[in-house]
Amino acid sequence: MPDDVLGPAVTEQALVSGEGGKRLRALLLLDAFDAASPAGTDSPAARGALDIACGIEVFQTAALIHDDIIDEADVRRGRPAAHRALGSFTRSSFQDVDDARARALGSGLGIMLGDLMATASVSIINAAVGTLPNRGRIMDRFLAMHRDVEVGQVLDLAAEHLGLDDPDALAKGSLAVFRWKTASYTTIAPIELALLAAGLDEDVCHDAALRIGTPLGIAFQLADDLLDVVADTASTGKPVGGDIREGKRTVLLADALAGSDADDAAYLRGRFAASHRSDDDVRRIIGLFVSTGAVERSRERIIALWHEANEGIVSCADALGLDERGLAALVTACSRFIPSDLRVEISPASRGGSRDGRR
Amino acid sequence: MPDDVLGPAVTEQALVSGEGGKRLRALLLLDAFDAASPAGTDSPAARGALDIACGIEVFQTAALIHDDIIDEADVRRGRPAAHRALGSFTRSSFQDVDDARARALGSGLGIMLGDLMATASVSIINAAVGTLPNRGRIMDRFLAMHRDVEVGQVLDLAAEHLGLDDPDALAKGSLAVFRWKTASYTTIAPIELALLAAGLDEDVCHDAALRIGTPLGIAFQLADDLLDVVADTASTGKPVGGDIREGKRTVLLADALAGSDADDAAYLRGRFAASHRSDDDVRRIIGLFVSTGAVERSRERIIALWHEANEGIVSCADALGLDERGLAALVTACSRFIPSDLRVEISPASRGGSRDGRR
Repeated sequence: MPDDVLGPAVTEQALVSGEGGKRLRALLLLDAFDAASPAGTDSPAARGALDIACGIEVFQTAALIHDDIIDEADVRRGRPAAHRALGSFTRSSFQDVDDARARALGSGLGIMLGDLMATASVSIINAAVGTLPNRGRIMDRFLAMHRDVEVGQVLDLAAEHLGLDDPDALAKGSLAVFRWKTASYTTIAPIELALLAAGLDEDVCHDAALRIGTPLGIAFQLADDLLDVVADTASTGKPVGGDIREGKRTVLLADALAGSDADDAAYLRGRFAASHRSDDDVRRIIGLFVSTGAVERSRERIIALWHEANEGIVSCADALGLDERGLAALVTACSRFIPSDLRVEISPASRGGSRDGRR
Repeated sequence: MPDDVLGPAVTEQALVSGEGGKRLRALLLLDAFDAASPAGTDSPAARGALDIACGIEVFQTAALIHDDIIDEADVRRGRPAAHRALGSFTRSSFQDVDDARARALGSGLGIMLGDLMATASVSIINAAVGTLPNRGRIMDRFLAMHRDVEVGQVLDLAAEHLGLDDPDALAKGSLAVFRWKTASYTTIAPIELALLAAGLDEDVCHDAALRIGTPLGIAFQLADDLLDVVADTASTGKPVGGDIREGKRTVLLADALAGSDADDAAYLRGRFAASHRSDDDVRRIIGLFVSTGAVERSRERIIALWHEANEGIVSCADALGLDERGLAALVTACSRFIPSDLRVEISPASRGGSRDGRR
């Protein structure tokens, strides 16, 4: 970047915004590669897989920066969101910038920082694929992941305006957001890109990624939404009931509406149609999420989706050429996305066909 | 895109936003390819070059959508800017959306539409390079173009805060914006990508693109800024003096400050430090741009840069293997970026070494 006053600030913010993630997506990609590849961790393909894993993390940072602008969020990972930090920088650097202009400049710089990091994520992939099998397909799927997340963000904006009279439609809309905005880059793409880097057939990779990654990623987001109402602040670092305070349309809300009597349903619809909800509202709504069975229903949904993901792993094991070690490694890698108390064991019987150690 | 209410609106806006451009960049790429390639217009490489040309146009639309959000612009190519059109759509589609929320939603959807089109532009390149020479390099340079424009936008935001006391620094800052935000994707990338698609050596392509495209693209932007003060509205479709009204820091302003006496310089600094400029101000400032010699200085700058671009073409002709037809075709293609009255002819003597028709 040429010498100027904002360039260093934007570059520095790129590093700050990239810090503090749990790297769950990168880890899944590396573990899925290791499960499927006989090449070993020192091979050129393994180094390529590591680069792709980094590219996904850079993409996530880019997507979060744009998300936070759209949501007008102030905080990300315990620090000022990128657009807020950049706004503060312009406020303190330029005499002629007042508070309102600083906020606008911060958003403008944040849009560009997100663009720069999205571009960088693709550059990382382009540099990585030179020595990998399926090079054109890996790039194609990486870009499809970008597109899916962008589509998911549009769906998320639309979901804010879903009516509260039809719990089924609300749950369906919310689950679609989970599929496109979360599962796409959290579980589907890491699995598909890992398998492509391991040199497997592109149709096999695509099928396996969808079968395993779709239920797994949706379960992950359901568990995240559940934490918002059942965890304590100390364990999550977020205030309890934050989604409720924001009026977010969630599967929990849909299930609570479906399980409510007429009075409670009217109360919920009224509070979620309002512009904000008080601390008392949040407490009462959390109480309803429990008493209507919505919390239990989300736990059942997660258990069922985890079961579906396991079935996906088992059904694809032959096509992926997984031996017993590979199968167990992939199950373990996927299990990180599910709270430990909701993980059902795969019975040895259901693994059946894959226990004879091909490859 | 899955079925939802906003998806079709965003998709439709992608088409609307893509209309109405002059396709200057695509034409330069196709003509530069034709000048350098012996393959003919029906070859797979020529079809690949056409795809890359489309990819640049899609990228431009993406960049303009984000630019218009950052600049809070209402109009683009005579229609509502994308974020404004999408804001209006949400206002009329959702009962619970007021004017302020519609503007915010429009900006959010505009950020996503820009992201989607930037992603699409890269997908077009990825599909095109499969059968082209230099495939990894073409993608690398296409992504470098993305990055350069994003950096240029950051420089542009910084340039708004350049002091008015140092005309040299102001001119330098403004020319840097032209290099990164305009020349990058208007002339440098089209030339480099065309030559790479024609199968030429990557270092030769890079050198030629910088030598020809840098002065050409800067001259193009200087001519565009000049039109803002010397053309009439009928020929440009824009109100005269629009840049002055916005307080834009331009090379014209820098040259006017450099050529002013103390009183006029103080007047210009005062008006450009103010939050807005009246119609009388605009008329007087245009008068000063003429009387201080700034308009004439911009014309001289354009003539000199066009000369430099021509020298670039001639000096690279051997390395590019251009025959006389190719040389003339490339000069003609580049000349479209320069107003006809400012195009100096290349003397036959200076073409010297390239007249013997290699290839």
